[in-house]
Amino acid sequence: MVFKCSTELRVRLPETDAMGVVFHGSFFTYFDVARMDYVRNLGLIPRYLTGEGTNLIVHTSADFRAPARFEDLLVVRTRISKLGRSSLTFELRVEQKHDGSLVAEGGSVHVMIDPKTRRPVPIPDDLRQAIRAFEGSALAES
Amino acid sequence: MVFKCSTELRVRLPETDAMGVVFHGSFFTYFDVARMDYVRNLGLIPRYLTGEGTNLIVHTSADFRAPARFEDLLVVRTRISKLGRSSLTFELRVEQKHDGSLVAEGGSVHVMIDPKTRRPVPIPDDLRQAIRAFEGSALAES
Amino acid sequence: MVFKCSTELRVRLPETDAMGVVFHGSFFTYFDVARMDYVRNLGLIPRYLTGEGTNLIVHTSADFRAPARFEDLLVVRTRISKLGRSSLTFELRVEQKHDGSLVAEGGSVHVMIDPKTRRPVPIPDDLRQAIRAFEGSALAES
Amino acid sequence: MVFKCSTELRVRLPETDAMGVVFHGSFFTYFDVARMDYVRNLGLIPRYLTGEGTNLIVHTSADFRAPARFEDLLVVRTRISKLGRSSLTFELRVEQKHDGSLVAEGGSVHVMIDPKTRRPVPIPDDLRQAIRAFEGSALAES
Repeated sequence: MVFKCSTELRVRLPETDAMGVVFHGSFFTYFDVARMDYVRNLGLIPRYLTGEGTNLIVHTSADFRAPARFEDLLVVRTRISKLGRSSLTFELRVEQKHDGSLVAEGGSVHVMIDPKTRRPVPIPDDLRQAIRAFEGSALAES
Repeated sequence: MVFKCSTELRVRLPETDAMGVVFHGSFFTYFDVARMDYVRNLGLIPRYLTGEGTNLIVHTSADFRAPARFEDLLVVRTRISKLGRSSLTFELRVEQKHDGSLVAEGGSVHVMIDPKTRRPVPIPDDLRQAIRAFEGSALAES
Repeated sequence: MVFKCSTELRVRLPETDAMGVVFHGSFFTYFDVARMDYVRNLGLIPRYLTGEGTNLIVHTSADFRAPARFEDLLVVRTRISKLGRSSLTFELRVEQKHDGSLVAEGGSVHVMIDPKTRRPVPIPDDLRQAIRAFEGSALAES
Repeated sequence: MVFKCSTELRVRLPETDAMGVVFHGSFFTYFDVARMDYVRNLGLIPRYLTGEGTNLIVHTSADFRAPARFEDLLVVRTRISKLGRSSLTFELRVEQKHDGSLVAEGGSVHVMIDPKTRRPVPIPDDLRQAIRAFEGSALAES
C-alpha cells in the first residue's frame, strides 16, 4: 500500500483523556483533518465548501495499535483505495513521526450526494479523474 | 444570587485530559448545555432553532476553583443577571453534586441579532417578559 | 438482538458541525458514555476508576444511517455480545428517542490488561459472571 | 502590545458547530495550543511534561469579534504580559491569516504549583529569566 498524502499533527491536550493517552475518538478527528488535506491537495476544497461535492460518511472504523500521548508528533497517511459509482473509500494510517511506529489504522466510506435531495449521485468525472491520476494503479474501481 | 435553573452533568472521559482532570475548555461546553436548558425551560427552543432568537456570544469568562474528574456528577446553576436593549448576561456556577462544593464560575454576554443582517436587534418583548417573570427582582435591566 | 441497557443523550451544540448535523466522530463519544453507563449499571465503576479492570479499546467501527441534529434526544442501546479470554465486544445502536428510528450502529472490542505491564490478562471471574448474568443466553463466549 | 510568538491553525470540521461557525469554546483549545507553542518555543516543554513546571489555569476569558469558519487559516498571537510571584498572565489574539482581521481576543491566568501538594510555589528563577528575556520591557512584574 502506497500512501502519497500525509499530514502532520501534534497531539493537543484536549485530545487526550484522564487515562493519560489520546482519547480513541480523537483519531476520527485526525482522520477528518487528513482527508481534508487530501481533498485540498487535489485542489477540490473550494467546490466542497460550496456544497458541490457534498458527501456523507456512511462507515468508519479504526484499529488502535499503540497509545499516543500529549505533545506527540504524528503523521497521518491517507489514500483513496476504492472508487464505486457514488462511493469512495479512504484508508488511513497514523504513525509516530520520530520512528514511524504504527499508532492506529482506519478507514471510511463516503457517498457522494446531491446537497438538496441528499440522494446518491455519481462521482463527478473530473473528481474521478483527479483521484485516478493521483492514486495510479493501486486504485480499485467498480 | 439566586439560581433558579440547574442542569446535572456527568463528566465524560473525552472531557478530561492527560492532567487527569476536566480540561478547562470543557467547562464552556457545560455552560452551553446549561444555557440551552435554561432557554428550553422557558419554552423558547423551537424559536431558537428556526433562527428567530439568533444570538451571538460576544464574551465569556470562567474562574476555576477546584478540579473535576472523570465520572464526577456536576450541577451547573444558571441565571440571567442582566438584560440590555439587545444583550443579555448569563452567570453560571458549577458545583460537585455530592457536597455542593464550588468547581467553577463563569459568565457570558450574548447579543440578539437579525439572522440575515447579523446586526443587533432589540430583545423581543415576549422573551424579555419571560426572563423577567422567571428571574424576578434580581434581574438588572438597562 | 436484545439491548438491555440504554442511555439517553441530548445532542449538544459543540457535537454538531458546520454541515448542520452531528459530527460523525461525536458518536464515538456517545458510545463511550453508553459503555460507561453499562459498566456503572453492573456496579463496576469504582474498580474501573482505581485501575483494576483497566482495558484498552483495540477496535471500533460505526455505520451512520441517518443524520442527528442539535437538540435531538437520542437513545444509545448497549450490549456486550461476546466474551473472549481477555477481550469483550460491545454492540451499540443509536436511535431517535421520539420515533425509535435508527441513527447509527457501532461496535468496539476491548482487551483487559494489567495496568502496570499493559499485557492482556484474563477477564476476572466476577466480571465475567456479572456480564453473563446480565446478558443471558445471547452472549457468545469463547 | 507586541506578540512575539504566533501559531498557525486551520479550522477543523469538529471545531465548528451547526450555526456554521467555529464553536466559541473551540477558541480555548486554540489558546491552549498557542500557549504550548509558546512554552515549547522557550525550550520548556520537557520539564513541563515531567511535572516540574505544573501549573493550574485559574481564570480565562475571551471576546469574540468576528466568526471564523471551517477551513479558515488562523493565526494565534501569544504573549505573557504579567509575572507575579507564583502566577503568570497570557494574552492571546486570534486573527484571520489572509487579512490580519481580528477574530477573538483572550487571556488566562495560571498559578505555578507543586505537583504533589498542589500548593502555589514561586515561579522558578530560570523560567522567570527566560520569559523576561523573551518578552523584554513590555512584561509587567510584581
